[in-house]
Amino acid sequence: MDISALREANPEHWMKAGAIRALTLDAVAAANSGHSGMPMGMADVATVLFEKHLSFDPKNPNWPDRDRFILSAGHGSMLIYSLLYLTGYEAMTLDQIKNFRQMGAITAGHPEYGHVPGVETTTGPLGQGISNAVGFAMAEEILRARFGKKVVDHYTYVIAGDGCLMEGISQEAIGLAGKQELSKLIVFWDNNNITIDGTVELSDKTNQVMRFKASGWHVQEVDGHDPEAIDAAIEAAKKTKKPSMIACKTHIALGSSAQDTSKGHGALTDPELIKNAKEAYGWPQEPFTVPADVKAQWEAMGGRGAEARAEWEARFATLSQGRQKEFNRVFAGEAPKKLTATIKALKKQISEEQPKVATRAASQKVLDAVNPIMTETVGGSADLTGSNNTKSGDMEMFDPSNRKGRYVYYGIREHGMAAAMNGLALHGGLRSYGGTFLCFTDYARGAMRLSALMGVPTTYVMTHDSIGVGEDGPTHQPIEHVAMLRATPNMNVFRPADTVETAEAWEIALTAQDTPSTLVLTRQGLPTVRTEHKNKNLTAQGAYVLADAEGKREVILMATGSEVSVAMAARDILQAEGIGTRVVSMPCWELFEQQDEAYRKRVLPGGPVRVAVEAAARQGWDRWLCGERGKYNKAAFVGMESFGASAPAGVLFEHFGITAENVAQKAKELL
Amino acid sequence: MDISALREANPEHWMKAGAIRALTLDAVAAANSGHSGMPMGMADVATVLFEKHLSFDPKNPNWPDRDRFILSAGHGSMLIYSLLYLTGYEAMTLDQIKNFRQMGAITAGHPEYGHVPGVETTTGPLGQGISNAVGFAMAEEILRARFGKKVVDHYTYVIAGDGCLMEGISQEAIGLAGKQELSKLIVFWDNNNITIDGTVELSDKTNQVMRFKASGWHVQEVDGHDPEAIDAAIEAAKKTKKPSMIACKTHIALGSSAQDTSKGHGALTDPELIKNAKEAYGWPQEPFTVPADVKAQWEAMGGRGAEARAEWEARFATLSQGRQKEFNRVFAGEAPKKLTATIKALKKQISEEQPKVATRAASQKVLDAVNPIMTETVGGSADLTGSNNTKSGDMEMFDPSNRKGRYVYYGIREHGMAAAMNGLALHGGLRSYGGTFLCFTDYARGAMRLSALMGVPTTYVMTHDSIGVGEDGPTHQPIEHVAMLRATPNMNVFRPADTVETAEAWEIALTAQDTPSTLVLTRQGLPTVRTEHKNKNLTAQGAYVLADAEGKREVILMATGSEVSVAMAARDILQAEGIGTRVVSMPCWELFEQQDEAYRKRVLPGGPVRVAVEAAARQGWDRWLCGERGKYNKAAFVGMESFGASAPAGVLFEHFGITAENVAQKAKELL
Repeated sequence: MDISALREANPEHWMKAGAIRALTLDAVAAANSGHSGMPMGMADVATVLFEKHLSFDPKNPNWPDRDRFILSAGHGSMLIYSLLYLTGYEAMTLDQIKNFRQMGAITAGHPEYGHVPGVETTTGPLGQGISNAVGFAMAEEILRARFGKKVVDHYTYVIAGDGCLMEGISQEAIGLAGKQELSKLIVFWDNNNITIDGTVELSDKTNQVMRFKASGWHVQEVDGHDPEAIDAAIEAAKKTKKPSMIACKTHIALGSSAQDTSKGHGALTDPELIKNAKEAYGWPQEPFTVPADVKAQWEAMGGRGAEARAEWEARFATLSQGRQKEFNRVFAGEAPKKLTATIKALKKQISEEQPKVATRAASQKVLDAVNPIMTETVGGSADLTGSNNTKSGDMEMFDPSNRKGRYVYYGIREHGMAAAMNGLALHGGLRSYGGTFLCFTDYARGAMRLSALMGVPTTYVMTHDSIGVGEDGPTHQPIEHVAMLRATPNMNVFRPADTVETAEAWEIALTAQDTPSTLVLTRQGLPTVRTEHKNKNLTAQGAYVLADAEGKREVILMATGSEVSVAMAARDILQAEGIGTRVVSMPCWELFEQQDEAYRKRVLPGGPVRVAVEAAARQGWDRWLCGERGKYNKAAFVGMESFGASAPAGVLFEHFGITAENVAQKAKELL
Repeated sequence: MDISALREANPEHWMKAGAIRALTLDAVAAANSGHSGMPMGMADVATVLFEKHLSFDPKNPNWPDRDRFILSAGHGSMLIYSLLYLTGYEAMTLDQIKNFRQMGAITAGHPEYGHVPGVETTTGPLGQGISNAVGFAMAEEILRARFGKKVVDHYTYVIAGDGCLMEGISQEAIGLAGKQELSKLIVFWDNNNITIDGTVELSDKTNQVMRFKASGWHVQEVDGHDPEAIDAAIEAAKKTKKPSMIACKTHIALGSSAQDTSKGHGALTDPELIKNAKEAYGWPQEPFTVPADVKAQWEAMGGRGAEARAEWEARFATLSQGRQKEFNRVFAGEAPKKLTATIKALKKQISEEQPKVATRAASQKVLDAVNPIMTETVGGSADLTGSNNTKSGDMEMFDPSNRKGRYVYYGIREHGMAAAMNGLALHGGLRSYGGTFLCFTDYARGAMRLSALMGVPTTYVMTHDSIGVGEDGPTHQPIEHVAMLRATPNMNVFRPADTVETAEAWEIALTAQDTPSTLVLTRQGLPTVRTEHKNKNLTAQGAYVLADAEGKREVILMATGSEVSVAMAARDILQAEGIGTRVVSMPCWELFEQQDEAYRKRVLPGGPVRVAVEAAARQGWDRWLCGERGKYNKAAFVGMESFGASAPAGVLFEHFGITAENVAQKAKELL
């Protein structure tokens, strides 16, 4: 393609966009890996967006009322790194660009949240960014309703590729955004018709314009290399009352010999190709060069945002002291002071009343106490509100007609929900939680992993946590799910035994700063095992002695969740026979691992026989059964060795041998 | 709603459909759990389908050329159980209906493949059935192209609900089916506007008609209670050259006091409600009653299929003996006799040549050898063909213009791919495999778990299996994924160390009858460690001694995949210092667990220090480190304790200490 017409039509724009293209070519060549074609194709759109529309201040990257820019097509990371360098984000030096994809550089292969200011969310796994963006846009609506337009009033912009739109999660995001009429969400689709395997037609013939319209979006189609058309489309998108998709017809790897090919999607490292492309661009050959006048024009772009920020600060100062403090508190992610007292009071009440309730109902009880004093929470469920017990009495539905609502009906969209929860939390000012059945963690894993990787303190409320599900059968009975969550780095997995532990788990989850939590909760009723009130949050230690042996300590029973009461009943059997038995409740392995060795040894001393009981796969338990560093213990596990079955819960626990009698028997066999 | 007009319009149809409604009410009431409303709403559609269109033979439920009927909205399981009972499937007795959702009954909470003939796939997790159906319909196309229309010519019918269509996976299925022009796929959408949380509008306003049309589907809208309109729509759907969606406007829980409410979605057990509904239906009150004339009409329906089957058998008999034999072989899932010899020859060649290649490239080498002699394989990738190395040289693209093609460009749709792979395999006559990056197992988990639960011998080719991914960074570097696959019951997880083990793993995967396999393969090159040829498939034992200690056995190093060569190099270091060191390669834990205790003890005897090395999470390794039943060993693990980073692979292995030096050091510290 002859690109001279593009150059000539708008020489100034051309050079600005050229800076992105040239930096991308150079960085990918230096790294000998990466994706050149996408930044080269979308450089014009990004330039117009940053120059004419995006409200951002490189000197204050985390200014709360900035527009959010999300590169959903994260493999094109050099696009955003170029933009951050060019506009003058301090952290994004030219050296960082030169060290693209190298150890210790902030210019990771895919944009990583927390590594570099200006990257609002980690992207790369396709479809996540556009789905996070739904959460960002919901957050803006909620906070605008709460704090007023003068301090919250910004847009969420997304660049998504064909891959993002082919992933199923995008449909969940599109449907939710359409229903919620998120008019300040603007998505650019990089319509280049190329995937890794070849043209999009190899695998898809979807009319994306029609698809977005079907879900209530405003859609425009533009030439993605025509700056005026792009500008006009953004203007129009800002004016509609619907979420907006701008289909940008682009050429991947524009102006290079790999243009419009799947080769152009990947790393263009051939020196000849780079030389020719730069020639076609009218760009200096010297790597990592940006002419001073071009750099100056880019740096000037942040000026609009800096002004806007200064004006915002003046407006913010007009808020009452109380409102300012509240705004600052929620953006800092600090829990209200009352939280601890509220949790303690609830624990005390429960230890006295000793109700027999499912931990999902216990969770509701906590939310009923906590949500009214912690208005930054945004709850929801993937169409299982009554089953997940996620809607506290005070919560209203979030809806176009009620932007102060804090409860989201996410629909049957576990993956989209989890990604939106990430967005809600990443935006700042809110804490998100959402529920589904634990088994359907399978549908949400892609986004849950990113919560952990980013360190976003979202809370997953995963109910119906074992064969206790009963009649719904093996498709709905988790076996491996607790193990898979525990195997995930930086994810606190709580499986509380009763309402007291549930309250403690929630307290930890709601005060976490950089770790997501998963609450693994029962469908079936459980007795209260924490019958003696303690102010201290014992769950924060991960595991603790719930009941110690009477007499010589011969057996340690370890359990979580619904099996703690099984272990307690097994202890009764053993103690009745004179066998001293300790029960250790282990609601959160991750936190137990973080305790010092002395504490861990006090809870799990060497010597006694150990039996663990959990209505789940054994994987991971050997660590506690064998003792750390291989210390010898006779040990057994009582749990699941197969998928479950369809029958009433009580029948299943008997059938699979997860009973007090069996646990006691196993212990005696080892003595 | 007054249903008398419906009753009067077509009294005979009404009574047939009434049988489904009444059985559903009675079974759910008896179980005191389940979902009444969906079968009550879709009874008319199902009756017309079974009476006028579905080609099925209750006496020969597995007749290869039957039409497939898939209840994607699996919670409405009483719909299919009623249909199977009414039409006379022998296994589906009235007692089974009476024992709905009870231990040992085939009438599980959700339809379970393998429990009962007539259930083509396990459904319940929403969106899976419609996505399996894409695989079923592709299988029909491929086998028709191969064996001819006279022996393969049938339809795939699906009932999907709002939940199925809201799940993202459905978009992947819709897109793929549209692109592939699967004209024999006919989906009924149970358009009842009700979800568990309330009306669909709570969370979605998508125009489904427009959405399906956008992906190239033929769409009709009918009154789902008008038998003539339903019949006409099915006729029209059969005639189009596109996949077809029939939007059936229905009333959930029709004719009961819970009609059109979310209460109607669940278990209707109120005796008064049931009494009144039966009265409105003009149905006997006695539970589990079907008037003899109505039952006789239902049983007669199978007659059309029985005739069709008899005619099919006559046509089948006209095939040559060789074609018949081949047809029967592939439908029995038997590998061709040549497979073993082919694998052996390849192993021998590799042990001699000792190439240094990535195991993903090794996998391609195996496929290049195997696919030409095993024409029942259908391969594919989620847009990573060149990276997953899944397309062997002989494979052509499956496409509307080439139905003999066996390679599917699934697009960027991991979940839809996995579900379609299940469908391809469940249909019979084909073996499916498909690839993506191991990290994106996260996107496919929902369907992969169902492979395991159903016992479908699909093969997942998961490449880029560790920090060896390198520069793409932590979003693309699996840590917990091997653990989570191993925690899943009935999933063989292979992490081969070189081309020989890769060939052995493929041999097991391609001959498996009721277990899916996941091949976990490297991006980076690995040396050949199996340098001495053995005819025997050592991987089939799960773990084996790759190199024994010279001198006194003081250390056992255990490893999988890319870390086996690390362990071998560590052994060199230790042996050089006179420390006798055994290396155990453990390519498949599941198969090792199935070996007898004597073998396991021979491979991993008590006594020596044990060090395990795997570039992944530790979870699960303690089982082998501590020894079974807590036998004492000094032990250490070398692997990942966090997410990865973005840098060249070699740098990362050094950074995270996954090196021969570190492994040797750890062993020495324990001695």
